[in-house]
Amino acid sequence: MTRIVAIHEGVAPIASAIRNAYIDFSKMTASIVAVVTDIVRDGRPVIGYGFNSNGRYAQSGLLRERFIPRLLAADPATLVDADRDNLDPHKAWACLFANEKPGGHGERSVAIGVLDMALWDAVAKIERKPLWRLLADRYRAGVADERVFVYAAGGYYYPGKDLAALKAEMQGYLDLGYSVVKIKIGDDLDDDLRRFDAVLSVVGRGERLAVDANGRFDLPTAVAYARALAPYGLFWFEEAGDPLDYALQCELAQHYPHAMATGENLFSMQDARNLIRYGGLRADRDWLQFDCALSYGLVEYLRTLEMLRANGWSARRCIPHGGHQMSLNIAAGLGLGGNESYPGVFQPFGGFADGIPVVDGHVRLPADPGVGFEAKRQLYAVLSSLHR
Amino acid sequence: MTRIVAIHEGVAPIASAIRNAYIDFSKMTASIVAVVTDIVRDGRPVIGYGFNSNGRYAQSGLLRERFIPRLLAADPATLVDADRDNLDPHKAWACLFANEKPGGHGERSVAIGVLDMALWDAVAKIERKPLWRLLADRYRAGVADERVFVYAAGGYYYPGKDLAALKAEMQGYLDLGYSVVKIKIGDDLDDDLRRFDAVLSVVGRGERLAVDANGRFDLPTAVAYARALAPYGLFWFEEAGDPLDYALQCELAQHYPHAMATGENLFSMQDARNLIRYGGLRADRDWLQFDCALSYGLVEYLRTLEMLRANGWSARRCIPHGGHQMSLNIAAGLGLGGNESYPGVFQPFGGFADGIPVVDGHVRLPADPGVGFEAKRQLYAVLSSLHR
Repeated sequence: MTRIVAIHEGVAPIASAIRNAYIDFSKMTASIVAVVTDIVRDGRPVIGYGFNSNGRYAQSGLLRERFIPRLLAADPATLVDADRDNLDPHKAWACLFANEKPGGHGERSVAIGVLDMALWDAVAKIERKPLWRLLADRYRAGVADERVFVYAAGGYYYPGKDLAALKAEMQGYLDLGYSVVKIKIGDDLDDDLRRFDAVLSVVGRGERLAVDANGRFDLPTAVAYARALAPYGLFWFEEAGDPLDYALQCELAQHYPHAMATGENLFSMQDARNLIRYGGLRADRDWLQFDCALSYGLVEYLRTLEMLRANGWSARRCIPHGGHQMSLNIAAGLGLGGNESYPGVFQPFGGFADGIPVVDGHVRLPADPGVGFEAKRQLYAVLSSLHR
Repeated sequence: MTRIVAIHEGVAPIASAIRNAYIDFSKMTASIVAVVTDIVRDGRPVIGYGFNSNGRYAQSGLLRERFIPRLLAADPATLVDADRDNLDPHKAWACLFANEKPGGHGERSVAIGVLDMALWDAVAKIERKPLWRLLADRYRAGVADERVFVYAAGGYYYPGKDLAALKAEMQGYLDLGYSVVKIKIGDDLDDDLRRFDAVLSVVGRGERLAVDANGRFDLPTAVAYARALAPYGLFWFEEAGDPLDYALQCELAQHYPHAMATGENLFSMQDARNLIRYGGLRADRDWLQFDCALSYGLVEYLRTLEMLRANGWSARRCIPHGGHQMSLNIAAGLGLGGNESYPGVFQPFGGFADGIPVVDGHVRLPADPGVGFEAKRQLYAVLSSLHR
């Protein structure tokens, strides 16, 4: 019977000196965990790794005092997938959520997301498959996408960053193989319009540019931006207002005919369901950005996908926030619309396997068992430091 | 200029061996903080205390690594209420929330709530007033309620607890001076109806009994309970379904004519606003249970009250969850409908000042400056241990 024999937890810095409309990331860290199993391969135990997505840090107390003890105290028989002689991430999730109150989804959703990532990594390694392959086999009759659409999220505000620097940044993304780029907006509409023109002079067409307000607009500002943005036919207009202000999102749809995107700051199936119920989003064009690593992990993300299906939404409308390998596996294995990517920032956690280039705005996945951390050398060095 | 000179943080056990429909509280703790100011009274610094409300524990990482460092790193001039020569909790809140992303309200809302409580305690002590008096003076033209309605929340499931034990518990609440009692429901409708009859044989009338499902029902079960409960004319029917399932709450209102209550697991103004927008609650009879200590503190609670006012809801419809002195001060100072009380459990954090009895279901407040922790001896012993 497969067992968890230890869980190691630690904190690692994130390399970033950027800010968007709301956030300075320079003081942030990431929680990292290693779930050690009793399965031995090539003389070494199978270990699953996890880390938290950017933006919600300092989960150490929740992990050490609340969630890890629950998993370690569980009867191992209650965590097992007996049919497959493996661990069962769904059962582990139920164990983690035992004694939790409903509602109020934030932070603990990140702590559980970290552990869920490590559990899926271990489960796929024990099954000797890349996670994307395991997911396709279990949930999609074996059909996996060979490559995943990725876009380059950048265009952050830096002190002293001028239009020339912005253009150079965008050109760099094209040179890396990206076909769609994203920039932050919200400091000032006139200034942002100048920034659009600068970026469009590099990327060519509006449909290759997405913009992200990070939830900062009130309704009048959102509508003013919507009117100014409409002629550009952008790839998407992201998170105009507060992520929980579904009424604003719904009203905005009356003023903006092109694609909108939101959801990165909704951390549960219930919150995602409220967006679908009340946000006025359009299943034929809008995009959903729920990030499993912030939102109780893949077990909960499967519930969210089921909720979407029941409401007439295709998984193809999902392009998760976060730019990490976990969502890239889910995108390939479950047929999402793509995945975010932050070239060069949030290192070593952001980005995908070493040596796999972006081609025509798409990326392939490695064949390594698990999430593929071992194929990302600098990340693996940080994660494996937990048990050396 | 008033300054914060130190913030101490620790963890204390909560004495409880109870469970409700979802939760076993026996492993939970409470974070405690002491905000030390440079104001000296009677030879000792003025210190504000805070703790977190029951149910969401292990905030230590968020406090130590994310929020306390922000407050200590701030320019003291940015935290000052210059007009009153005091600290300004609103400015401190803005400092605490700097660099936070919108949405996803949980856990960090508790960590900020702990600090907000300590800041208000310090501010009221510096102003030499009980907090309820300070709030009445600042926000209600000096009008404070002399006494606050409180109800006895109990009726938990214990292993081996029979109807005789339940009746004895309820009789104990009446003997303590309470006029309304609350019991948990949800294990089984037939069994719960027997429990109602037992409790009603003690308390007399349905309007003296509230019931709490702790969010566990799906819609068919909630409706079945609503039909069975309706003839009793209960004080309220609390949290029938998932706290974020506003559609369930709204539908339930079509099946239940009497008072409903919810909100203890919504942790921000935005979440509270969604309940008001979509939950179908009725401002003439239903009750709102938002708990400031779980929800970014009093600064955010003031925003929630303003949102309620703008939507035609009186503050009198609010009876906060949590059973702590902070909400009792708010109830008296801002004219809420009352406050929860858990006689004898969640000690030493639950309950109010020593030596002030409940009379006819109401309690008075002490005249001590601040929240009144010094008037609750066992709690003060725990809180003051942070700086001894």
